[in-house]
Amino acid sequence: MGKLPAGIERNGNGLLQFNKAIIEATLPFTASYKINTAFYEQYGWEGWQWMEETLSYLPDSVFRIADAKRGDIGNTSTMYARAFFERMNFDAVTVAPYMGEDSLRPFLEFKDKWIICLALTSNAGHADFQKIESNQKRLYETVIERVCRWGNEENLMFVVGATRAEDVAHIRSLIPNHFLLVPGVGAQGGSLADVSAAGLNAHCGLLVNSSRGILYASNQEDYASAAAAEAQKLQGEMQSYLK
Amino acid sequence: MGKLPAGIERNGNGLLQFNKAIIEATLPFTASYKINTAFYEQYGWEGWQWMEETLSYLPDSVFRIADAKRGDIGNTSTMYARAFFERMNFDAVTVAPYMGEDSLRPFLEFKDKWIICLALTSNAGHADFQKIESNQKRLYETVIERVCRWGNEENLMFVVGATRAEDVAHIRSLIPNHFLLVPGVGAQGGSLADVSAAGLNAHCGLLVNSSRGILYASNQEDYASAAAAEAQKLQGEMQSYLK
Repeated sequence: MGKLPAGIERNGNGLLQFNKAIIEATLPFTASYKINTAFYEQYGWEGWQWMEETLSYLPDSVFRIADAKRGDIGNTSTMYARAFFERMNFDAVTVAPYMGEDSLRPFLEFKDKWIICLALTSNAGHADFQKIESNQKRLYETVIERVCRWGNEENLMFVVGATRAEDVAHIRSLIPNHFLLVPGVGAQGGSLADVSAAGLNAHCGLLVNSSRGILYASNQEDYASAAAAEAQKLQGEMQSYLK
Repeated sequence: MGKLPAGIERNGNGLLQFNKAIIEATLPFTASYKINTAFYEQYGWEGWQWMEETLSYLPDSVFRIADAKRGDIGNTSTMYARAFFERMNFDAVTVAPYMGEDSLRPFLEFKDKWIICLALTSNAGHADFQKIESNQKRLYETVIERVCRWGNEENLMFVVGATRAEDVAHIRSLIPNHFLLVPGVGAQGGSLADVSAAGLNAHCGLLVNSSRGILYASNQEDYASAAAAEAQKLQGEMQSYLK
């Protein structure tokens, strides 16, 4: 709540007013919205209610991602899939691969839905486990290789941090056709130019995410138009790389 | 809802009536309750409301675990920690290690709270990544070793599946003093005798979880007394191994 711009109430109504204005302002420049579940869960069931209300502001024309990093034994993953795909009608959910095949399969059984599996993340801790090498393969490479056996280009993407463009290029060489969700542009320091050069394919193949850079483009009453300007700038830049 | 016993309404009220009766009946035999967030999230914000209401039935004397398998970049993990430790006052939350140190640290900064980190899980998919070997160490061994540098015996436990007692014994040899949360006894097929022989230490050191075996001990009106009998049986058995 503390980051809401001036003039907005610091409560659920204010949050929803902010979300609605941001969505309406950025819609012309945005292919996808990613909702980070943690920021709602901190407010308990009211937070979940706000998250669900926020989803109702998103038209069917945009791709709706639950950034939830879920993953558990099979019958539990089925419940998470129901939560995000059925109850809330997200198009995709981010998942963590540590528990293996039967923790991801339940999500893949939902028609026209996607999982976005953590591969190489944008945070400092990515090096702790994701880059451990075994048989000349780093863990994130093994994750990509194996998870690609369980899903396909129509239901599986990977999370690849934008903070190291050379990693994006390497992963693109491993999976030429899968979409990559690329967080880390903006507040986390990744460059859209570098990521685009490294990761674009014939079908675009990149979902580049900017959160704080757009949401908090202004902390004054012009927050919505400032967010729209920032989204338009990114969209225009991306468009130029697509040509 | 489909698994609720006969005579219980298939709605939120029925679910809460069931949870309350199960908790009251099993309390004399139970050190800890583990709530699986997914089963509530499938019902959206109402589900979260039922989860929070259920928590209010648990006295401070029991150890309250959110089985949520969370983990994200630092500022997001902080939000998850707030959700489970502050808003809901859980004592512990299960976390996934894939994103490394800065994804777990925020949880460890909360005083008198615990993380329970996935190490070696009870599902079939555990073999996909957790047993990958690098420098004579399997991934789950590296996870245990590194995560032990970030936490200590007072704020860190590990999830170790009960379905393979020899794995419990091996992990106990690596970390003699840490508590282990052991799911997989009961419906998933693990044996309490084997797990106890392999995992008990001087301070007990085991939280053995049985979910479906207790919750669904009877699907008739005697469900609460049947659950109590099952919990008492497990508690008595565990007590005999502790001597």
